[in-house]
Amino acid sequence: MKIAVLYGGTRDQGNTELLTEKVIHNLDVEKIYLKDHTIVPLVDQRHSEGGFQEINDGYNSIIDRIRDAEVLIFATPIYWYSMSGTMKLFIDRWSQTLRDSEYPDFKDTMSSKEAYVIAVGGDNPYIKGLPLIQQFQYIFDFMGISFAGYVIGEGNKPGDIMEDSEALFAAEQIQKALHSSK
Amino acid sequence: MKIAVLYGGTRDQGNTELLTEKVIHNLDVEKIYLKDHTIVPLVDQRHSEGGFQEINDGYNSIIDRIRDAEVLIFATPIYWYSMSGTMKLFIDRWSQTLRDSEYPDFKDTMSSKEAYVIAVGGDNPYIKGLPLIQQFQYIFDFMGISFAGYVIGEGNKPGDIMEDSEALFAAEQIQKALHSSK
Amino acid sequence: MKIAVLYGGTRDQGNTELLTEKVIHNLDVEKIYLKDHTIVPLVDQRHSEGGFQEINDGYNSIIDRIRDAEVLIFATPIYWYSMSGTMKLFIDRWSQTLRDSEYPDFKDTMSSKEAYVIAVGGDNPYIKGLPLIQQFQYIFDFMGISFAGYVIGEGNKPGDIMEDSEALFAAEQIQKALHSSK
Amino acid sequence: MKIAVLYGGTRDQGNTELLTEKVIHNLDVEKIYLKDHTIVPLVDQRHSEGGFQEINDGYNSIIDRIRDAEVLIFATPIYWYSMSGTMKLFIDRWSQTLRDSEYPDFKDTMSSKEAYVIAVGGDNPYIKGLPLIQQFQYIFDFMGISFAGYVIGEGNKPGDIMEDSEALFAAEQIQKALHSSK
Repeated sequence: MKIAVLYGGTRDQGNTELLTEKVIHNLDVEKIYLKDHTIVPLVDQRHSEGGFQEINDGYNSIIDRIRDAEVLIFATPIYWYSMSGTMKLFIDRWSQTLRDSEYPDFKDTMSSKEAYVIAVGGDNPYIKGLPLIQQFQYIFDFMGISFAGYVIGEGNKPGDIMEDSEALFAAEQIQKALHSSK
Repeated sequence: MKIAVLYGGTRDQGNTELLTEKVIHNLDVEKIYLKDHTIVPLVDQRHSEGGFQEINDGYNSIIDRIRDAEVLIFATPIYWYSMSGTMKLFIDRWSQTLRDSEYPDFKDTMSSKEAYVIAVGGDNPYIKGLPLIQQFQYIFDFMGISFAGYVIGEGNKPGDIMEDSEALFAAEQIQKALHSSK
Repeated sequence: MKIAVLYGGTRDQGNTELLTEKVIHNLDVEKIYLKDHTIVPLVDQRHSEGGFQEINDGYNSIIDRIRDAEVLIFATPIYWYSMSGTMKLFIDRWSQTLRDSEYPDFKDTMSSKEAYVIAVGGDNPYIKGLPLIQQFQYIFDFMGISFAGYVIGEGNKPGDIMEDSEALFAAEQIQKALHSSK
Repeated sequence: MKIAVLYGGTRDQGNTELLTEKVIHNLDVEKIYLKDHTIVPLVDQRHSEGGFQEINDGYNSIIDRIRDAEVLIFATPIYWYSMSGTMKLFIDRWSQTLRDSEYPDFKDTMSSKEAYVIAVGGDNPYIKGLPLIQQFQYIFDFMGISFAGYVIGEGNKPGDIMEDSEALFAAEQIQKALHSSK
């Protein structure tokens, strides 16, 4: 099973990455650090003459790398009660790819995947992170992606997440599920 | 009363802007089109030695422009069930400004403001836009901003919003409230 | 078009009823005041030998009255950030009706209906009433009912709702929609 | 530490009760099965002359039993994406107790408590149970109760919950927290 992780964080070895490590430990995964790629904001040209203009940034290379993945893991710190702006820029661009003749089967390939969300926040994330989970549910529903599960973790200072035993346990459960379906 | 509008959209005269026009009609407002400013993604350096590194992009000039506003209007198309990535980049950077010695009173000045949200989406926004509203509630709560009201509108093609009589009416109610407290 | 209103309130001419009046004005509707019927709490016997035991209270007569309605209006005051307990008792019992051999086509008939929700609350209902709306979305999704719209109103003291011009306007829009499809 | 459990379920040894058992195992708790008490629906007489009329059902005896508890555990099956009607009837009545001269310190005593929610559902509760958690957050906020944590579990058939290892683990974590603060 091919697994790709999309990291939305901006800190090396941040809490979100540490928690995600519990999920992907010993599995062969494609790690994509969104911060290392230039992703320009979507310009909504759905209704412009000529449609969307081609953009030459780092975005398409990411789409190419997740194309064959059966499992996507969206690993994001919770910034202001949602995914990081970096990850949002990436997802916003899907609107363009859905209309890109170079990617005629984008929705089809996405709809065959399953996805997990790993999100770590510092301000009562078990409650205040719930709108984020609902947003992902709508995103996945739209694309036909199966929402296989999520883990919310609590952490502020580096390493805090290692104290969140529930989040660690939940991450290990996903690890087991991914392992057994390898 | 000083009013600043923060536009998150990327289309000129898009539905969100048209709806916002109903709110600010005849009022003296500061219009800020976030897309016209370069805002680089936050790099979370809260825990780095030396803290956040100064960034020289267009972000601070926006903060300067909203500083004296008593009312902020966040006007965003609903992209993927949340605010646009462009607007999210802007809000994410608040984490830096909160620790920026050049802006020692950032939270204080923000907490004296009231805010409205104008959001237009194409996929059942009255239901699927609700997590966005909840997210803004948490954002405003954190900053101490008073959440004065919101309008959700439905629209896909350019101009669609003019058919959403409920959204237009709600926008006019805010217009009246702003007018009478001028 | 046959319309049935299910009232969850307990006060005569309460704010919810006044707001609903704006929706159904001049329309021929079946008004059902849930408080006037005895509805005992569901006992979950889905997994009991013999299944659900027949209950002889006022519940089935309500189901009979809404059977032919094409439109259902759920009109409830917001008690503790959700529908009234009275209305919840009514909906909980659907679990029994779904397995009741006397109502073999319950889900089928329900799935052909469309529904509106009218909800009035006193504690910031535009924000704190949103989980209630999401809950109704899930309820309707499960039954296959089409969620045609909702109105949230604000009111505490009797008559307060008449000051909520947005809610009144929204109610009138539903009135128009129902009228034109008569 | 005094702990009271409020059960909203209607099935003996249902999944919610089994999961709650993991939380309270070996602790001295007051178990209150709401289904064993007659709780009539609230009649909203906040604005009636004379106020609320005294009701002689089983409700007040429950309030008396939880009065001294430092921890409240709300254990409810998820019926139609919220708490059971039985539990909702109980909470609705708080509106009366808040104005009951026999309970002048009701809000004060409640505001000194902390609360947990244990909720088990059969239809994707990790997503569709989130509005229920948000409703409880608002309920606790209103009363000043500290929301100490929640567990969502998945289960349909009797005993299913024993397969939900994440829910069981989360329950055990609460057990540990309660034990150590005994």
